[in-house]
Amino acid sequence: MAIDVAAFDRIFNPKTVAVVGDKKQAGYMWLNSMSTFQGPFYSVQVDEREIPGIEALGVKNYKSLLEIPEPIDFVVVAVPRKITPRILEDCISKQVGGATFYTSGFSETDTEEGIALQNTLTERAREANFMLVGPNCMGIFVPKVGVRFSVQQYAGEGGEVGFIGQSGTHSMNFSLMGAVHGVKVSKLVSFGNAIVLDAPDYLEYMGQDTETRIIGMYIEGVKDGRRFFEVLRQVAREKPVVIWKGGQTGDGARAVASHTASLATEMSVWESLVRQCGAITVDSLDEMIDVLKALLYIKPSTGTRMGIMALTGGQSVVSADAFAKAGLHVSLLSEKSYEELSTFFSVIGASYRNPLDISSNLPDQQVLVRILEILEQDETVDSIMTELSTSILDRRESFGEGYVSNLLKILASHHQQSRKPFFTTVFSVGQEVEAIRLRDSLIEKGIPAFPSFHRSANAYKKVVDYYRFRES
Amino acid sequence: MAIDVAAFDRIFNPKTVAVVGDKKQAGYMWLNSMSTFQGPFYSVQVDEREIPGIEALGVKNYKSLLEIPEPIDFVVVAVPRKITPRILEDCISKQVGGATFYTSGFSETDTEEGIALQNTLTERAREANFMLVGPNCMGIFVPKVGVRFSVQQYAGEGGEVGFIGQSGTHSMNFSLMGAVHGVKVSKLVSFGNAIVLDAPDYLEYMGQDTETRIIGMYIEGVKDGRRFFEVLRQVAREKPVVIWKGGQTGDGARAVASHTASLATEMSVWESLVRQCGAITVDSLDEMIDVLKALLYIKPSTGTRMGIMALTGGQSVVSADAFAKAGLHVSLLSEKSYEELSTFFSVIGASYRNPLDISSNLPDQQVLVRILEILEQDETVDSIMTELSTSILDRRESFGEGYVSNLLKILASHHQQSRKPFFTTVFSVGQEVEAIRLRDSLIEKGIPAFPSFHRSANAYKKVVDYYRFRES
Repeated sequence: MAIDVAAFDRIFNPKTVAVVGDKKQAGYMWLNSMSTFQGPFYSVQVDEREIPGIEALGVKNYKSLLEIPEPIDFVVVAVPRKITPRILEDCISKQVGGATFYTSGFSETDTEEGIALQNTLTERAREANFMLVGPNCMGIFVPKVGVRFSVQQYAGEGGEVGFIGQSGTHSMNFSLMGAVHGVKVSKLVSFGNAIVLDAPDYLEYMGQDTETRIIGMYIEGVKDGRRFFEVLRQVAREKPVVIWKGGQTGDGARAVASHTASLATEMSVWESLVRQCGAITVDSLDEMIDVLKALLYIKPSTGTRMGIMALTGGQSVVSADAFAKAGLHVSLLSEKSYEELSTFFSVIGASYRNPLDISSNLPDQQVLVRILEILEQDETVDSIMTELSTSILDRRESFGEGYVSNLLKILASHHQQSRKPFFTTVFSVGQEVEAIRLRDSLIEKGIPAFPSFHRSANAYKKVVDYYRFRES
Repeated sequence: MAIDVAAFDRIFNPKTVAVVGDKKQAGYMWLNSMSTFQGPFYSVQVDEREIPGIEALGVKNYKSLLEIPEPIDFVVVAVPRKITPRILEDCISKQVGGATFYTSGFSETDTEEGIALQNTLTERAREANFMLVGPNCMGIFVPKVGVRFSVQQYAGEGGEVGFIGQSGTHSMNFSLMGAVHGVKVSKLVSFGNAIVLDAPDYLEYMGQDTETRIIGMYIEGVKDGRRFFEVLRQVAREKPVVIWKGGQTGDGARAVASHTASLATEMSVWESLVRQCGAITVDSLDEMIDVLKALLYIKPSTGTRMGIMALTGGQSVVSADAFAKAGLHVSLLSEKSYEELSTFFSVIGASYRNPLDISSNLPDQQVLVRILEILEQDETVDSIMTELSTSILDRRESFGEGYVSNLLKILASHHQQSRKPFFTTVFSVGQEVEAIRLRDSLIEKGIPAFPSFHRSANAYKKVVDYYRFRES
């Protein structure tokens, strides 16, 4: 391990920021994004026609980085590609902490000019030991200090997930979609062509970062495989690392070449190395968010025996299928549980095998409380999953106004007191917006909600496998 | 093939309807659901305390089916299970067209009383050749005639999909979620315990029904396997049949026993028989809707060579992966296409391999028009998929107000004129409600939209395989 932690800390926790080359035509995306930054931030723009617009935003503009009268910790470079070598020189002269080179048009274009420019930047930055993020990337997002690369991103309260992305889109989308699902970042970096700082460096940094409890990565290719897997092995011992590989197929690898000019890796080799390191593999942004959600919100467990509460018979069947197909078990409960259930559970249009199809028992919320208690006490059950759907909302009228809020209280109270993993699957039954609200209410109470039994089962199984690996 | 089509037509297109046993405590679910019925409908309720509430709904109540002064085509029976044999007698005496027995509490409860009652109903109905739907089911939904089993269901304009479901929940959820996705039904039946009419009967009926172009089924088990597969083979020759099997796993099969008391089928046998018949298998409600959407809205094709337009480099990589993993191809375009693209396509921060990463070309909508034309003309491309995400909506300001509506017009015009299959993948980038609206706008224009590349690719591949099977 070889990174300079203090140098990383300086760019991930900057006290001062400068943006070089933002302009009206770009909608001042960088200056607007940095409006949440906690310290002073400056613009650098030489074009006289652009300066009034920048100053109208309340941002002080300088003609050169070197003119800024205080030290700068973090710079965003958004100038045309031809000008990037000159700005890099200024960054080096000014001894700034480091810079995101947002500019694209380098090796990924497979053009002579692009490759030559990338070589120039690489040589100079390495020679000067300069902390260069990118180029061809969105750079750094640290909500706590208000460093953002999009005005849509949140600022202020961060989370516990560090994210390292070799794609601006996936890094951006992760930050936005993750937040919707209660998965917020401590620090995020989109690193693009990685000509100086590369995935293993960021991984090593996030690995030792105390604000980061879990790490997510989107990777298209690694240049120094040996170092990558060495770092991964060490970091994965300390905290969960979830990896999504882009370019898994021949067609995908060709797209990778056009995107970040990374070399393809034989997928079977990649997968086996990643698994040996104890990292968790995922296949899409949705799965990344599902697994991180499970890691953040579900109590750690190596148990595969599910106790499932479904709202109807049809859902009891397909939930059992989904969990069993994922490699989990939905077995019969203990005799003691069945004895207790038989004293109060109505079986007309319902059933209390496992999954419990609670159907006609739904109106009486004390029945739900008792079922949760029974599943909690049953030693044949490792983990509890409850289905919720917007069909409950439609029955509010017959169930009484406080039904849903009381149901949420019951689940939250169970979740807090229970020793067992607990999670929910929240369906939309034609009412998509209401399902989103129901999920949000659960997240607010710290209860994870997945949008289908398949995704529920898959996320839980992946974290069970992870905890089993760590135990062994 | 042995069904009495006229008898089926009578219950699926009733002129008169009666509901037996609806009451206040049930929220008058049946009477309210039937409020959209095009002809006269009546209530049958003996409880004096219930009658004023029923009449307050504007529904004429009788103390017995036999008192209704006109013939009745379709009856819904919602009485306690003990009373069901008496109501069945009344139905037979009155010579009604048929009845849904909504009541549950029969063999699925595995109780002596439930089993005995089910046997009584079965014997009497078979003896009288009575068209009994159920019991333990939601029965019939025919939007055109306004026969519904939930007030949430639509009425008036129907669709072209016939749905046969051995689960009330999945049938209900299919009707509601399908509508959201532009997948509307011609006729739907939830058939539950199927003591008289069973899956092959409904399938045979939907098979010859001219209002039904495509059939979806949720099946937990079949009693007469030989007949089921015979009918399936014949029907699947005429129209696509999409089958979702509940109870695929040991745990799922056990849940099936509690739900509809169906016997489990060895899954590998089931799958191979279904495939031999040329039906399409799916694994969840989401996949059912995806595949039906693809069958309804994507032009039939056996071509696997995709032309993909992605909005960013990151999405070009993962879209290529998703389509290649599904068994489709995202290969290089023809030389002619690249020659044309090179004359106008900006490669800085973008790329025109395949997937085309249009990124920086996005503001100029004429570029999109030209790309679609090039993909349309390119003989190496069988089918075109375009990514759309809510990130486009955020750029409205810089792109101009009419950007999104004009983009939709461009896509709709392409979709209408193109000979090739065309579909979209619509992402939410943190803005879930806006993504729903964008999808709805596309559906309105007849353009199918899937929520992820995986689901897009899977749905398209399933219909390609289906058309290949039909060709062979």
